[in-house]
Amino acid sequence: MKNIYATIEYFGTNYCGFQVQKNGNSVCEELVKAIFCATQEKVNIIGSGRTDAGVHALGQVINFELNKVLPIDKLPIIINRFLPNDIKIIECHEVTHTFNARKSAKKKTYRYVINNGTRQGIVDENRCLFFPYKLDVDKIILASKTLVGEHDFKAFMSSGSQVSSTIRTIYKIDIKQKACHIHIDITGNGFLYNMVRIIVGTLLDIGCGNKPIEVLQQMLDSNDRKLGGKTVASHGLYLLKVKY
Amino acid sequence: MKNIYATIEYFGTNYCGFQVQKNGNSVCEELVKAIFCATQEKVNIIGSGRTDAGVHALGQVINFELNKVLPIDKLPIIINRFLPNDIKIIECHEVTHTFNARKSAKKKTYRYVINNGTRQGIVDENRCLFFPYKLDVDKIILASKTLVGEHDFKAFMSSGSQVSSTIRTIYKIDIKQKACHIHIDITGNGFLYNMVRIIVGTLLDIGCGNKPIEVLQQMLDSNDRKLGGKTVASHGLYLLKVKY
Repeated sequence: MKNIYATIEYFGTNYCGFQVQKNGNSVCEELVKAIFCATQEKVNIIGSGRTDAGVHALGQVINFELNKVLPIDKLPIIINRFLPNDIKIIECHEVTHTFNARKSAKKKTYRYVINNGTRQGIVDENRCLFFPYKLDVDKIILASKTLVGEHDFKAFMSSGSQVSSTIRTIYKIDIKQKACHIHIDITGNGFLYNMVRIIVGTLLDIGCGNKPIEVLQQMLDSNDRKLGGKTVASHGLYLLKVKY
Repeated sequence: MKNIYATIEYFGTNYCGFQVQKNGNSVCEELVKAIFCATQEKVNIIGSGRTDAGVHALGQVINFELNKVLPIDKLPIIINRFLPNDIKIIECHEVTHTFNARKSAKKKTYRYVINNGTRQGIVDENRCLFFPYKLDVDKIILASKTLVGEHDFKAFMSSGSQVSSTIRTIYKIDIKQKACHIHIDITGNGFLYNMVRIIVGTLLDIGCGNKPIEVLQQMLDSNDRKLGGKTVASHGLYLLKVKY
Protein backbone atom coordinates (compact mmCIF):
# COMPACT_ATOMS: atom_id res chain seq x y z
CA MET A 1 0.00 0.00 0.00
CA LYS A 2 1.45 3.33 -1.08
CA ASN A 3 0.33 6.84 -0.15
CA ILE A 4 0.22 8.88 -3.37
CA TYR A 5 0.54 12.66 -3.47
CA ALA A 6 -0.88 14.23 -6.64
CA THR A 7 -1.02 17.81 -7.89
CA ILE A 8 -4.08 18.43 -10.01
CA GLU A 9 -5.44 21.14 -12.23
CA TYR A 10 -9.07 21.71 -13.13
CA PHE A 11 -11.37 24.16 -14.81
CA GLY A 12 -14.27 24.32 -12.38
CA THR A 13 -17.08 25.68 -14.57
CA ASN A 14 -18.71 22.30 -15.18
CA TYR A 15 -18.48 21.05 -11.59
CA CYS A 16 -20.40 21.52 -8.35
CA GLY A 17 -17.02 21.95 -6.67
CA PHE A 18 -14.21 19.70 -5.55
CA GLN A 19 -16.11 17.76 -2.93
CA VAL A 20 -18.68 15.04 -3.69
CA GLN A 21 -22.22 16.41 -3.35
CA LYS A 22 -25.66 14.91 -3.72
CA ASN A 23 -26.59 17.09 -6.67
CA GLY A 24 -24.07 17.69 -9.36
CA ASN A 25 -20.86 16.30 -10.63
CA SER A 26 -17.76 16.91 -8.53
CA VAL A 27 -14.06 16.97 -9.40
CA CYS A 28 -13.42 14.40 -6.68
CA GLU A 29 -15.90 11.92 -8.18
CA GLU A 30 -14.27 12.25 -11.59
CA LEU A 31 -10.89 11.51 -10.03
CA VAL A 32 -12.24 8.45 -8.19
CA LYS A 33 -13.80 7.13 -11.42
CA ALA A 34 -10.65 7.72 -13.47
CA ILE A 35 -8.38 6.11 -10.86
CA PHE A 36 -10.74 3.13 -10.77
CA CYS A 37 -10.63 2.81 -14.56
CA ALA A 38 -6.84 3.00 -14.47
CA THR A 39 -6.15 0.72 -11.48
CA GLN A 40 -9.39 -1.18 -10.63
CA GLU A 41 -9.15 0.28 -7.13
CA LYS A 42 -11.80 2.47 -5.54
CA VAL A 43 -9.61 4.94 -3.66
CA ASN A 44 -10.50 7.40 -0.95
CA ILE A 45 -9.35 10.83 -2.05
CA ILE A 46 -8.32 13.50 0.43
CA GLY A 47 -8.09 17.00 -1.03
CA SER A 48 -6.18 19.92 0.49
CA GLY A 49 -9.58 21.56 0.82
CA ARG A 50 -12.84 22.10 -0.97
CA THR A 51 -13.24 24.51 -3.78
CA ASP A 52 -16.72 25.83 -4.58
CA ALA A 53 -18.72 25.36 -7.75
CA GLY A 54 -17.08 27.24 -10.61
CA VAL A 55 -13.73 27.72 -8.84
CA HIS A 56 -10.66 26.61 -10.79
CA ALA A 57 -7.43 25.05 -9.56
CA LEU A 58 -3.95 25.19 -11.01
CA GLY A 59 -2.34 23.41 -8.07
CA GLN A 60 -4.86 21.53 -5.95
CA VAL A 61 -3.22 18.70 -3.98
CA ILE A 62 -4.78 15.35 -3.15
CA ASN A 63 -3.57 12.10 -1.64
CA PHE A 64 -4.87 8.54 -1.80
CA GLU A 65 -3.71 5.06 -0.81
CA LEU A 66 -3.08 2.63 -3.65
CA ASN A 67 -2.38 -1.12 -3.47
CA LYS A 68 -1.54 -1.73 -7.08
CA VAL A 69 2.13 -1.65 -7.94
CA LEU A 70 2.55 0.85 -10.78
CA PRO A 71 5.38 3.17 -11.79
CA ILE A 72 4.28 6.24 -9.86
CA ASP A 73 5.78 8.75 -12.27
CA LYS A 74 3.62 7.22 -15.03
CA LEU A 75 0.40 7.51 -12.98
CA PRO A 76 -0.55 10.95 -14.41
CA ILE A 77 -0.44 9.61 -17.97
CA ILE A 78 -2.34 6.46 -17.02
CA ILE A 79 -5.06 8.25 -15.05
CA ASN A 80 -5.38 11.34 -17.29
CA ARG A 81 -6.52 9.05 -20.09
CA PHE A 82 -9.73 8.48 -18.13
CA LEU A 83 -10.28 12.05 -16.93
CA PRO A 84 -12.44 14.61 -18.73
CA ASN A 85 -10.61 17.38 -20.58
CA ASP A 86 -11.11 19.89 -17.77
CA ILE A 87 -9.36 17.87 -15.04
CA LYS A 88 -5.73 16.81 -15.21
CA ILE A 89 -3.18 15.21 -12.88
CA ILE A 90 0.07 17.13 -13.27
CA GLU A 91 2.42 15.14 -11.07
CA CYS A 92 2.42 12.22 -8.64
CA HIS A 93 4.91 10.96 -6.09
CA GLU A 94 4.94 8.70 -3.06
CA VAL A 95 4.72 10.16 0.44
CA THR A 96 4.80 8.65 3.93
CA HIS A 97 1.56 7.28 5.35
CA THR A 98 1.32 10.14 7.83
CA PHE A 99 0.81 12.63 4.98
CA ASN A 100 -2.75 13.95 4.68
CA ALA A 101 -3.40 16.53 1.95
CA ARG A 102 -5.84 18.43 4.17
CA LYS A 103 -4.28 18.18 7.61
CA SER A 104 -0.65 18.52 6.52
CA ALA A 105 -1.26 21.70 4.49
CA LYS A 106 0.74 24.66 5.81
CA LYS A 107 -0.04 27.44 3.31
CA LYS A 108 -2.42 27.97 0.45
CA THR A 109 -2.39 30.58 -2.27
CA TYR A 110 -5.50 31.65 -4.10
CA ARG A 111 -5.62 33.99 -7.09
CA TYR A 112 -8.59 36.13 -8.03
CA VAL A 113 -8.59 37.48 -11.60
CA ILE A 114 -10.46 40.66 -12.56
CA ASN A 115 -11.00 42.00 -16.06
CA ASN A 116 -11.00 45.76 -15.47
CA GLY A 117 -11.25 46.56 -19.17
CA THR A 118 -14.18 47.97 -21.06
CA ARG A 119 -15.56 44.72 -22.38
CA GLN A 120 -16.15 41.19 -21.29
CA GLY A 121 -14.15 39.03 -23.65
CA ILE A 122 -15.53 35.75 -24.95
CA VAL A 123 -12.07 34.20 -24.69
CA ASP A 124 -12.00 35.09 -20.97
CA GLU A 125 -15.44 33.64 -20.29
CA ASN A 126 -15.75 31.96 -16.89
CA ARG A 127 -12.09 32.79 -16.32
CA CYS A 128 -12.31 36.16 -14.56
CA LEU A 129 -14.70 38.69 -13.06
CA PHE A 130 -15.73 41.43 -15.47
CA PHE A 131 -15.54 44.69 -13.51
CA PRO A 132 -15.53 47.65 -15.92
CA TYR A 133 -15.55 50.43 -13.29
CA LYS A 134 -12.66 52.78 -12.61
CA LEU A 135 -10.40 51.32 -9.93
CA ASP A 136 -7.64 52.90 -7.88
CA VAL A 137 -5.29 49.92 -7.78
CA ASP A 138 -2.75 51.69 -5.52
CA LYS A 139 -5.52 52.23 -2.98
CA ILE A 140 -6.45 48.55 -3.17
CA ILE A 141 -2.82 47.55 -2.59
CA LEU A 142 -2.58 49.90 0.38
CA ALA A 143 -5.89 48.67 1.84
CA SER A 144 -4.93 45.02 1.44
CA LYS A 145 -2.07 45.46 3.93
CA THR A 146 -4.64 45.75 6.75
CA LEU A 147 -5.45 42.08 6.32
CA VAL A 148 -1.92 40.69 6.46
CA GLY A 149 -1.15 38.94 9.75
CA GLU A 150 -3.13 36.84 12.23
CA HIS A 151 -6.70 38.09 12.65
CA ASP A 152 -10.20 36.93 13.44
CA PHE A 153 -11.67 36.86 9.93
CA LYS A 154 -15.25 36.12 11.05
CA ALA A 155 -16.54 39.15 9.09
CA PHE A 156 -15.03 37.58 5.96
CA MET A 157 -16.98 34.33 6.17
CA SER A 158 -20.30 33.42 4.60
CA SER A 159 -22.85 31.76 6.84
CA GLY A 160 -23.48 28.04 6.47
CA SER A 161 -20.04 26.90 7.50
CA GLN A 162 -19.09 25.38 10.85
CA VAL A 163 -15.57 25.98 12.04
CA SER A 164 -14.19 25.87 15.55
CA SER A 165 -12.11 29.00 15.06
CA THR A 166 -12.32 31.94 12.68
CA ILE A 167 -8.74 33.01 13.34
CA ARG A 168 -6.50 32.74 10.31
CA THR A 169 -3.16 34.15 9.21
CA ILE A 170 -2.66 35.87 5.87
CA TYR A 171 1.02 35.84 4.99
CA LYS A 172 0.94 37.88 1.82
CA ILE A 173 -1.38 39.69 -0.57
CA ASP A 174 0.20 40.35 -3.91
CA ILE A 175 -1.70 42.54 -6.38
CA LYS A 176 -0.55 42.94 -9.98
CA GLN A 177 -2.06 44.76 -12.92
CA LYS A 178 -1.31 43.38 -16.40
CA ALA A 179 -2.96 45.51 -19.06
CA CYS A 180 -6.66 45.38 -18.19
CA HIS A 181 -6.36 42.33 -15.92
CA ILE A 182 -5.77 42.51 -12.18
CA HIS A 183 -4.46 39.49 -10.27
CA ILE A 184 -4.96 39.37 -6.51
CA ASP A 185 -2.87 36.56 -4.96
CA ILE A 186 -3.57 35.78 -1.31
CA THR A 187 -1.45 33.36 0.71
CA GLY A 188 -2.63 32.19 4.12
CA ASN A 189 -2.52 29.25 6.51
CA GLY A 190 -6.16 28.54 5.71
CA PHE A 191 -9.29 30.25 4.47
CA LEU A 192 -12.85 30.45 5.80
CA TYR A 193 -15.89 29.79 3.61
CA ASN A 194 -15.89 32.41 0.81
CA MET A 195 -13.13 34.37 2.57
CA VAL A 196 -11.13 35.20 -0.57
CA ARG A 197 -14.26 36.20 -2.49
CA ILE A 198 -15.44 38.51 0.33
CA ILE A 199 -11.96 40.06 0.65
CA VAL A 200 -11.91 40.74 -3.10
CA GLY A 201 -15.48 42.11 -3.09
CA THR A 202 -14.55 44.53 -0.31
CA LEU A 203 -11.27 45.56 -1.96
CA LEU A 204 -13.18 46.35 -5.18
CA ASP A 205 -15.63 48.53 -3.22
CA ILE A 206 -12.65 50.39 -1.75
CA GLY A 207 -10.94 50.66 -5.13
CA CYS A 208 -13.91 52.31 -6.78
CA GLY A 209 -14.63 54.61 -3.84
CA ASN A 210 -17.81 52.93 -2.56
CA LYS A 211 -16.28 52.15 0.82
CA PRO A 212 -13.54 53.88 2.83
CA ILE A 213 -10.18 52.18 3.19
CA GLU A 214 -10.82 51.80 6.94
CA VAL A 215 -13.70 49.38 6.40
CA LEU A 216 -11.33 46.39 6.49
CA GLN A 217 -10.09 47.27 9.99
CA GLN A 218 -13.69 47.88 11.08
CA MET A 219 -14.64 44.41 9.80
CA LEU A 220 -11.75 42.80 11.67
CA ASP A 221 -12.73 44.69 14.86
CA SER A 222 -16.50 44.19 14.71
CA ASN A 223 -16.78 40.74 13.09
CA ASP A 224 -19.61 42.28 11.06
CA ARG A 225 -19.98 40.69 7.62
CA LYS A 226 -22.52 43.33 6.61
CA LEU A 227 -19.86 46.05 6.54
CA GLY A 228 -18.05 44.29 3.70
CA GLY A 229 -18.54 44.13 -0.04
CA LYS A 230 -20.23 41.45 -2.10
CA THR A 231 -19.01 37.87 -2.31
CA VAL A 232 -17.64 38.10 -5.86
CA ALA A 233 -18.37 35.38 -8.42
CA SER A 234 -16.60 32.03 -8.12
CA HIS A 235 -15.43 31.95 -11.74
CA GLY A 236 -12.60 34.45 -11.11
CA LEU A 237 -11.06 32.30 -8.37
CA TYR A 238 -8.12 29.90 -8.74
CA LEU A 239 -6.47 27.68 -6.13
CA LEU A 240 -2.86 28.32 -7.18
CA LYS A 241 -0.81 26.18 -4.82
CA VAL A 242 -0.66 24.37 -1.52
CA LYS A 243 2.50 24.22 0.53
CA TYR A 244 3.37 21.39 2.93
CA MET B 1 -31.28 50.80 -46.78
CA LYS B 2 -28.38 51.36 -44.42
CA ASN B 3 -24.85 50.00 -44.60
CA ILE B 4 -23.93 48.69 -41.14
CA TYR B 5 -20.37 48.36 -39.88
CA ALA B 6 -19.98 45.89 -37.02
CA THR B 7 -17.01 44.84 -34.90
CA ILE B 8 -17.30 41.26 -33.77
CA GLU B 9 -15.53 38.93 -31.42
CA TYR B 10 -15.51 35.16 -31.57
CA PHE B 11 -13.89 32.13 -30.08
CA GLY B 12 -13.16 30.01 -33.12
CA THR B 13 -12.75 26.52 -31.67
CA ASN B 14 -16.25 25.35 -32.57
CA TYR B 15 -16.27 26.77 -36.12
CA CYS B 16 -14.91 25.78 -39.50
CA GLY B 17 -13.74 29.37 -39.85
CA PHE B 18 -15.32 32.72 -40.64
CA GLN B 19 -16.45 31.95 -44.17
CA VAL B 20 -19.43 29.75 -45.07
CA GLN B 21 -18.26 26.26 -46.09
CA LYS B 22 -20.02 23.15 -47.25
CA ASN B 23 -18.98 21.09 -44.26
CA GLY B 24 -19.10 22.62 -40.83
CA ASN B 25 -20.60 25.53 -39.07
CA SER B 26 -19.15 28.96 -39.84
CA VAL B 27 -19.13 32.19 -37.87
CA CYS B 28 -20.65 33.96 -40.87
CA GLU B 29 -23.65 31.60 -40.97
CA GLU B 30 -24.31 32.13 -37.28
CA LEU B 31 -24.28 35.89 -37.87
CA VAL B 32 -26.69 35.62 -40.82
CA LYS B 33 -29.07 33.45 -38.75
CA ALA B 34 -28.95 35.77 -35.74
CA ILE B 35 -29.49 38.90 -37.85
CA PHE B 36 -32.43 37.16 -39.51
CA CYS B 37 -33.95 36.27 -36.14
CA ALA B 38 -33.48 39.85 -34.96
CA THR B 39 -34.62 41.70 -38.11
CA GLN B 40 -36.38 39.19 -40.44
CA GLU B 41 -33.87 40.14 -43.12
CA LYS B 42 -31.49 37.73 -44.76
CA VAL B 43 -28.41 39.92 -45.10
CA ASN B 44 -25.27 39.44 -47.13
CA ILE B 45 -22.29 39.68 -44.80
CA ILE B 46 -18.90 40.93 -45.96
CA GLY B 47 -16.04 40.17 -43.58
CA SER B 48 -12.68 41.95 -43.54
CA GLY B 49 -11.24 38.57 -44.43
CA ARG B 50 -11.50 34.88 -43.69
CA THR B 51 -10.16 33.34 -40.56
CA ASP B 52 -9.40 29.60 -40.56
CA ALA B 53 -10.99 26.90 -38.45
CA GLY B 54 -10.04 27.37 -34.81
CA VAL B 55 -8.78 30.96 -35.23
CA HIS B 56 -10.25 33.51 -32.81
CA ALA B 57 -11.11 37.16 -33.36
CA LEU B 58 -11.22 40.03 -30.91
CA GLY B 59 -11.87 42.65 -33.58
CA GLN B 60 -13.13 41.15 -36.82
CA VAL B 61 -15.07 43.70 -38.90
CA ILE B 62 -18.08 42.99 -41.08
CA ASN B 63 -20.59 45.08 -42.99
CA PHE B 64 -24.08 44.36 -44.26
CA GLU B 65 -26.98 46.27 -45.78
CA LEU B 66 -30.14 46.48 -43.69
CA ASN B 67 -33.59 47.77 -44.71
CA LYS B 68 -35.27 47.67 -41.36
CA VAL B 69 -35.24 50.91 -39.39
CA LEU B 70 -33.75 50.10 -36.01
CA PRO B 71 -31.68 52.15 -33.54
CA ILE B 72 -28.23 51.14 -34.75
CA ASP B 73 -26.54 51.51 -31.37
CA LYS B 74 -29.00 48.95 -29.99
CA LEU B 75 -28.29 46.43 -32.77
CA PRO B 76 -25.54 44.56 -30.83
CA ILE B 77 -27.94 43.89 -27.93
CA ILE B 78 -30.74 42.85 -30.28
CA ILE B 79 -28.58 40.54 -32.41
CA ASN B 80 -26.41 39.12 -29.59
CA ARG B 81 -29.53 37.62 -28.06
CA PHE B 82 -29.66 35.23 -31.03
CA LEU B 83 -25.94 34.48 -31.26
CA PRO B 84 -24.22 31.52 -29.58
CA ASN B 85 -22.08 32.30 -26.53
CA ASP B 86 -18.86 32.21 -28.51
CA ILE B 87 -19.76 34.95 -31.02
CA LYS B 88 -20.59 38.51 -30.04
CA ILE B 89 -21.19 41.82 -31.80
CA ILE B 90 -19.30 44.48 -29.88
CA GLU B 91 -20.31 47.63 -31.71
CA CYS B 92 -22.30 48.78 -34.75
CA HIS B 93 -22.53 52.04 -36.62
CA GLU B 94 -23.71 53.27 -40.00
CA VAL B 95 -21.24 53.81 -42.83
CA THR B 96 -21.54 55.08 -46.40
CA HIS B 97 -22.61 52.63 -49.09
CA THR B 98 -19.12 52.62 -50.59
CA PHE B 99 -17.70 50.98 -47.46
CA ASN B 100 -16.78 47.32 -47.94
CA ALA B 101 -15.24 45.52 -44.94
CA ARG B 102 -12.90 43.54 -47.18
CA LYS B 103 -11.97 46.00 -49.89
CA SER B 104 -11.73 49.07 -47.65
CA ALA B 105 -9.41 47.43 -45.10
CA LYS B 106 -6.06 49.24 -44.82
CA LYS B 107 -4.29 47.36 -42.02
CA LYS B 108 -4.86 44.23 -40.03
CA THR B 109 -3.25 43.10 -36.82
CA TYR B 110 -3.02 39.44 -35.84
CA ARG B 111 -1.76 38.15 -32.51
CA TYR B 112 -0.21 34.73 -31.98
CA VAL B 113 -0.09 33.52 -28.36
CA ILE B 114 2.49 30.97 -27.19
CA ASN B 115 2.61 29.27 -23.81
CA ASN B 116 6.35 28.83 -23.28
CA GLY B 117 5.91 27.44 -19.76
CA THR B 118 6.45 23.92 -18.57
CA ARG B 119 2.89 22.75 -18.75
CA GLN B 120 -0.15 23.06 -20.91
CA GLY B 121 -2.81 24.64 -18.75
CA ILE B 122 -6.40 23.48 -18.95
CA VAL B 123 -7.58 27.08 -18.52
CA ASP B 124 -5.56 28.06 -21.60
CA GLU B 125 -6.92 25.20 -23.71
CA ASN B 126 -7.46 26.13 -27.37
CA ARG B 127 -6.25 29.64 -26.50
CA CYS B 128 -2.52 29.37 -27.22
CA LEU B 129 0.19 27.13 -28.61
CA PHE B 130 1.96 25.05 -25.99
CA PHE B 131 5.66 25.26 -26.79
CA PRO B 132 7.71 24.12 -23.77
CA TYR B 133 11.16 24.40 -25.39
CA LYS B 134 13.79 26.95 -24.42
CA LEU B 135 13.42 30.07 -26.54
CA ASP B 136 15.75 33.00 -27.10
CA VAL B 137 13.12 35.73 -27.29
CA ASP B 138 15.66 38.49 -28.03
CA LYS B 139 16.81 36.49 -31.04
CA ILE B 140 13.21 36.13 -32.21
CA ILE B 141 12.69 39.89 -31.87
CA LEU B 142 15.86 40.57 -33.84
CA ALA B 143 14.94 38.03 -36.54
CA SER B 144 11.42 39.41 -36.93
CA LYS B 145 12.81 42.75 -38.16
CA THR B 146 13.82 41.03 -41.43
CA LEU B 147 10.14 40.74 -42.32
CA VAL B 148 9.12 44.36 -41.74
CA GLY B 149 8.57 46.27 -44.98
CA GLU B 150 7.24 45.43 -48.43
CA HIS B 151 8.30 41.96 -49.59
CA ASP B 152 7.23 39.04 -51.72
CA PHE B 153 5.95 36.68 -49.03
CA LYS B 154 5.37 33.74 -51.35
CA ALA B 155 7.52 31.47 -49.15
CA PHE B 156 5.15 32.28 -46.29
CA MET B 157 2.01 31.03 -48.00
CA SER B 158 0.43 27.58 -47.86
CA SER B 159 -0.63 26.06 -51.14
CA GLY B 160 -4.29 25.96 -52.04
CA SER B 161 -4.80 29.69 -52.26
CA GLN B 162 -5.12 31.76 -55.40
CA VAL B 163 -3.94 35.33 -55.22
CA SER B 164 -2.84 37.64 -58.00
CA SER B 165 0.12 38.96 -56.02
CA THR B 166 2.11 37.62 -53.09
CA ILE B 167 3.58 41.02 -52.28
CA ARG B 168 2.51 42.36 -48.91
CA THR B 169 3.72 44.98 -46.46
CA ILE B 170 4.32 44.25 -42.80
CA TYR B 171 4.25 47.52 -40.86
CA LYS B 172 5.16 46.21 -37.44
CA ILE B 173 5.97 43.06 -35.49
CA ASP B 174 5.63 43.52 -31.77
CA ILE B 175 6.80 40.69 -29.51
CA LYS B 176 6.11 40.70 -25.78
CA GLN B 177 6.81 38.17 -23.08
CA LYS B 178 4.46 38.14 -20.09
CA ALA B 179 5.52 35.50 -17.57
CA CYS B 180 5.42 32.26 -19.56
CA HIS B 181 3.28 33.65 -22.39
CA ILE B 182 4.66 35.24 -25.53
CA HIS B 183 2.50 37.48 -27.71
CA ILE B 184 3.55 38.08 -31.31
CA ASP B 185 1.53 40.92 -32.84
CA ILE B 186 1.90 41.41 -36.60
CA THR B 187 0.40 44.36 -38.45
CA GLY B 188 0.29 44.38 -42.22
CA ASN B 189 -1.71 45.61 -45.18
CA GLY B 190 -2.91 42.06 -45.79
CA PHE B 191 -1.88 38.48 -45.19
CA LEU B 192 -1.51 35.45 -47.45
CA TYR B 193 -3.02 32.06 -46.62
CA ASN B 194 -1.44 30.86 -43.32
CA MET B 195 1.17 33.66 -43.52
CA VAL B 196 1.08 34.54 -39.81
CA ARG B 197 1.22 30.90 -38.76
CA ILE B 198 4.20 30.19 -41.04
CA ILE B 199 6.02 33.32 -39.81
CA VAL B 200 5.48 32.22 -36.20
CA GLY B 201 6.54 28.64 -36.92
CA THR B 202 9.77 29.89 -38.48
CA LEU B 203 10.43 32.38 -35.67
CA LEU B 204 10.04 29.54 -33.13
CA ASP B 205 12.56 27.43 -35.05
CA ILE B 206 14.99 30.36 -34.94
CA GLY B 207 14.26 30.99 -31.25
CA CYS B 208 15.13 27.46 -30.22
CA GLY B 209 18.17 27.23 -32.46
CA ASN B 210 16.79 24.85 -35.08
CA LYS B 211 17.22 27.36 -37.88
CA PRO B 212 19.67 30.24 -38.37
CA ILE B 213 18.40 33.79 -38.12
CA GLU B 214 19.20 34.28 -41.84
CA VAL B 215 16.53 31.80 -42.93
CA LEU B 216 13.89 34.54 -43.10
CA GLN B 217 15.92 36.53 -45.64
CA GLN B 218 16.59 33.32 -47.58
CA MET B 219 12.86 32.64 -47.71
CA LEU B 220 12.12 36.16 -48.96
CA ASP B 221 14.83 35.80 -51.60
CA SER B 222 14.07 32.27 -52.80
CA ASN B 223 10.27 32.10 -52.39
CA ASP B 224 10.90 28.60 -51.02
CA ARG B 225 8.28 27.57 -48.46
CA LYS B 226 10.28 24.45 -47.59
CA LEU B 227 13.02 26.52 -45.93
CA GLY B 228 10.57 27.74 -43.28
CA GLY B 229 9.22 26.24 -40.10
CA LYS B 230 5.90 24.51 -39.51
CA THR B 231 2.55 26.17 -39.95
CA VAL B 232 1.74 26.46 -36.24
CA ALA B 233 -1.70 25.49 -34.91
CA SER B 234 -4.66 27.77 -35.56
CA HIS B 235 -5.81 27.88 -31.94
CA GLY B 236 -3.08 30.34 -30.91
CA LEU B 237 -4.13 32.91 -33.53
CA TYR B 238 -6.33 35.97 -32.94
CA LEU B 239 -7.49 38.60 -35.43
CA LEU B 240 -6.99 41.61 -33.15
CA LYS B 241 -8.11 44.55 -35.26
CA VAL B 242 -8.76 45.91 -38.70
CA LYS B 243 -8.04 49.49 -39.60
CA TYR B 244 -9.88 51.44 -42.30
